Amino acid sequence: MAKKTAAPKTPGEMVQYSVSPAGEEFEIPRPQQYAAELRRVARRAKKAREEGKEVVVVMGVGFVGAVMAAIVADTEDKDGKPTKFVIGCQRPSTRSYWKIPLLNRGESPVRAEDPEVDAMIERCVVKKKSLVATYNSDCLKLADCVVVDVQCDYTKHELGNMVTGEAEMAALEATMRTIGEKIPKKCLTLIETTVAPGTTEFVAWPILKKAFAERGIKAAPLLAHSFERVMPGREYVASIRDFWRVCAGCNAEARRRVERFLRQVLNTVDYPLTVMDRPIESETTKIVENSYRATILAFLNEWSLFAERNGVDLIKVIKAIKMRPTHSNIIFPGPGIGGYCLPKDGGLGYWAYRHILGFEDGDSVFKITPGVIDINDTRGLHVAELTRDALRNMGRYIAGAEVLLCGASYRQDVGDTRYSGSEMVLRKLTEMGTDVRVHDPYVEHWYELEKQDVYPAPGHSWARFFHNQEGLVDTRVGSDLKAAIKGAEAVIFAVPHEPYLNLQPKDIVKWAGGPLAVIDCFGILSDDAIRRYFELGCEVKALGRGHIQRIKDEVRKKASK
Amino acid sequence: MAKKTAAPKTPGEMVQYSVSPAGEEFEIPRPQQYAAELRRVARRAKKAREEGKEVVVVMGVGFVGAVMAAIVADTEDKDGKPTKFVIGCQRPSTRSYWKIPLLNRGESPVRAEDPEVDAMIERCVVKKKSLVATYNSDCLKLADCVVVDVQCDYTKHELGNMVTGEAEMAALEATMRTIGEKIPKKCLTLIETTVAPGTTEFVAWPILKKAFAERGIKAAPLLAHSFERVMPGREYVASIRDFWRVCAGCNAEARRRVERFLRQVLNTVDYPLTVMDRPIESETTKIVENSYRATILAFLNEWSLFAERNGVDLIKVIKAIKMRPTHSNIIFPGPGIGGYCLPKDGGLGYWAYRHILGFEDGDSVFKITPGVIDINDTRGLHVAELTRDALRNMGRYIAGAEVLLCGASYRQDVGDTRYSGSEMVLRKLTEMGTDVRVHDPYVEHWYELEKQDVYPAPGHSWARFFHNQEGLVDTRVGSDLKAAIKGAEAVIFAVPHEPYLNLQPKDIVKWAGGPLAVIDCFGILSDDAIRRYFELGCEVKALGRGHIQRIKDEVRKKASK
Repeated sequence: MAKKTAAPKTPGEMVQYSVSPAGEEFEIPRPQQYAAELRRVARRAKKAREEGKEVVVVMGVGFVGAVMAAIVADTEDKDGKPTKFVIGCQRPSTRSYWKIPLLNRGESPVRAEDPEVDAMIERCVVKKKSLVATYNSDCLKLADCVVVDVQCDYTKHELGNMVTGEAEMAALEATMRTIGEKIPKKCLTLIETTVAPGTTEFVAWPILKKAFAERGIKAAPLLAHSFERVMPGREYVASIRDFWRVCAGCNAEARRRVERFLRQVLNTVDYPLTVMDRPIESETTKIVENSYRATILAFLNEWSLFAERNGVDLIKVIKAIKMRPTHSNIIFPGPGIGGYCLPKDGGLGYWAYRHILGFEDGDSVFKITPGVIDINDTRGLHVAELTRDALRNMGRYIAGAEVLLCGASYRQDVGDTRYSGSEMVLRKLTEMGTDVRVHDPYVEHWYELEKQDVYPAPGHSWARFFHNQEGLVDTRVGSDLKAAIKGAEAVIFAVPHEPYLNLQPKDIVKWAGGPLAVIDCFGILSDDAIRRYFELGCEVKALGRGHIQRIKDEVRKKASK
Repeated sequence: MAKKTAAPKTPGEMVQYSVSPAGEEFEIPRPQQYAAELRRVARRAKKAREEGKEVVVVMGVGFVGAVMAAIVADTEDKDGKPTKFVIGCQRPSTRSYWKIPLLNRGESPVRAEDPEVDAMIERCVVKKKSLVATYNSDCLKLADCVVVDVQCDYTKHELGNMVTGEAEMAALEATMRTIGEKIPKKCLTLIETTVAPGTTEFVAWPILKKAFAERGIKAAPLLAHSFERVMPGREYVASIRDFWRVCAGCNAEARRRVERFLRQVLNTVDYPLTVMDRPIESETTKIVENSYRATILAFLNEWSLFAERNGVDLIKVIKAIKMRPTHSNIIFPGPGIGGYCLPKDGGLGYWAYRHILGFEDGDSVFKITPGVIDINDTRGLHVAELTRDALRNMGRYIAGAEVLLCGASYRQDVGDTRYSGSEMVLRKLTEMGTDVRVHDPYVEHWYELEKQDVYPAPGHSWARFFHNQEGLVDTRVGSDLKAAIKGAEAVIFAVPHEPYLNLQPKDIVKWAGGPLAVIDCFGILSDDAIRRYFELGCEVKALGRGHIQRIKDEVRKKASK
């Protein structure tokens, strides 16, 4: 049940609420509350400064910002004394405001598999009192340093056509304007968001300069860039704090300041800091490294099809290749490459080349990066083909079939569903008239399925998906596999979550109530398991595993003797 | 001076010679010599078998075969007793015959930077007497095992258009026919050549089966595939013997035999052997791993151009990315990706899909692999553009300019010039009317420049290159840098050979006789060196290093004060 946190109301006033994922409602602050809120935060900041602490404002307390704010707030000198006072700042929108009161209670606004997240936030807010959250951006006036963690998305307008998309610069530009209007002139602003190369120097810096000029400040604003390399999962905090960082400043003073700041708050002793000459080099590093990863994954799509059609088990091929230390990062792509970064970062680079840096020959220069993202974005569609074919081999139709999709997240053993390959599988199956149920041990609610503006395939509108969604697609995700699979005609193992790795074929068939089609998207099934499924009368298909037909032939040959 | 190894001649007989790289002439054997040659080898084989040794014939004693033959011949049991007798077999063509007498003297027919090659061949031939070479393929009748190391090239007909090329199957097919006609029925044939996937099972096996049928042999020929992963350089022998192997057999007995053989001759204890289900899986593994590497390298071409045009030093970006263990194999591509394998293996895979495996949709399936090879093959052309622009900035023309190309080989600190990026640089510069001289500390003679059938760029015939070659291009390579650079208007550092890494700008300018254009293709120049070149009045350009303009501006600004 939802709890309400009430505040005195003026009669007739329109009251808006922001609802947390747990269902708790928080009233959006009204204009008359802002001044008191600033006084509250300013008092805390004044006290902190008197104790010799630096005041750091983190703009955006989402997936990265909330944890970064806590890491900074957790900073201590060699005597164990906190050296930073952190103010997490978030716009009071109905979508995001709830994060502020939650944080101020010492609760994490992000759900993470890493137990250190909750512990660190509670420690900093409740015990150390080095972390506070506010919706009032006037807190920027108090800052010695601002860390910008607002999102910069890349919106695609058509499935499999990355180049027609665009970088979403508005939120970042608005934040930079606010910062320019409010920060003290010697405050360092550090953009931590992954941005289109050139953004820091050619978009953000001019905004700050203009705001300073309007305020009559002659000094150049101190602006720097340093991207995070956060990885969802059990090492969430370490992936920010105990990991190699790259940074650069717009001028020598900004460079000096950002280097000092990062050396204070991160573990740069064990994970050396790289200081680059210009922000565009830092920005490009992030885009190139994620495009590299996206390329490595997309490369295998064609060999996955090659393998399926020619009796080759690509899983074994990859295992053999991984023996070479120089090739150990080759990785099977599963049903598509998701997560927040890999599907978009190459787009930010391509878009920057054309629109920030002004070149007209983007399509003749970028021969790999855009195509790679298109391949990764559409790879999941082939899973629906395999499901259709497996059902057909059993004399059934995909239309109207009861299909269980196991795994909604983008990666094994995390609950992050952003841009997951499974989403594309589900959308296409639903378009084909399938009744899809979803199971995932790490996901309670699949928010992405509620988005109405998801880019469609050319010639598609996803209309049927959204129509079906009303009744057939449940955005709630089941966690009881035995119950979820009951009556299913097909099961798709889309993510190699730990609980899926050692399931017994005989249990699956028993729970389902009879033989069913089994689709393996991630090399989850051993050859023995595949053999047993065939022996139990099931049909098996798998991404990149052409040797399955050979196992089927062997089972049939044996049975016919 | 060439020595002659004479043999008695019939009056009026046409005598042909095969000339070794050192200039020694060997008379090609005449038909009447074959019987005696077989008796010589058979006597040795008989004795070896009496001593309990297995007789292994290695077909092709080129780059891989000669060293593989020695590794097998070097095999000992746990008491240090040799267990294999190896016959290296090579066709007595004018191009290759010289390898046979050289090997029989205990001299390596391949020049390698690895001192173990010469020592091991001498040891096996002279001391252990476990290795002999012959031109008579009737030695196959003596074999317990045949290792096939003949080449399977991929010929491209047009520069930057890999898909119109073709696999050169003729030599392998002819070898398989000869093997099928001569081997004992229980002999294991092991194809070690990198081949188009499907070759072992769908091309070679049918040839052997047909030959066996013609000989009235009912048993299935024992055929297997196991590719080498040889790497030119100082670890040449180790890259064959002490490295992870993959193998597969056409049937269960062939698989058992190839596994046993490889466990005997290679270090499979420290480098575990992977046994796959079918040869097409082993063949595909090699093609995928080399295409992976080619993709990793080609990916950076577009970011290299991006960097050059936007003030980014891609060398520093790569260094920052390499900090991540999962990205540590990212590597700057230099002026193109050469060597024997990477420019062709993806071609073999693409060609196999269409022509051995019979699919018509190759171009819609293979979206990355073909383009990657085209990018790598043409990357060197841009170096000529940079040279042109650097000379123009100095008020000079590229046409008629004296240019020194430093580095002819495909990789640092090796002398292997096959498909090197430098070759493309030289060809384009020559087409543009440049007088190119070449320096390389590891290369004496650049054989590839003598080939007349090199695929041209569309719209090019390389005519001017071949015309110029008569007089202007010297296929001999200089080793005295001071002499080579005298009077040069531009120097191109194309390969990061050790002697090029710490050259002093003031020496280069002094030796050249004045300021010159300096082109860095491999991140060889430090920022300090670049600065000093500018201070000395030189012009500097570099692949992927856009920050050079900033250094130039700084030097000019300082000079104008």
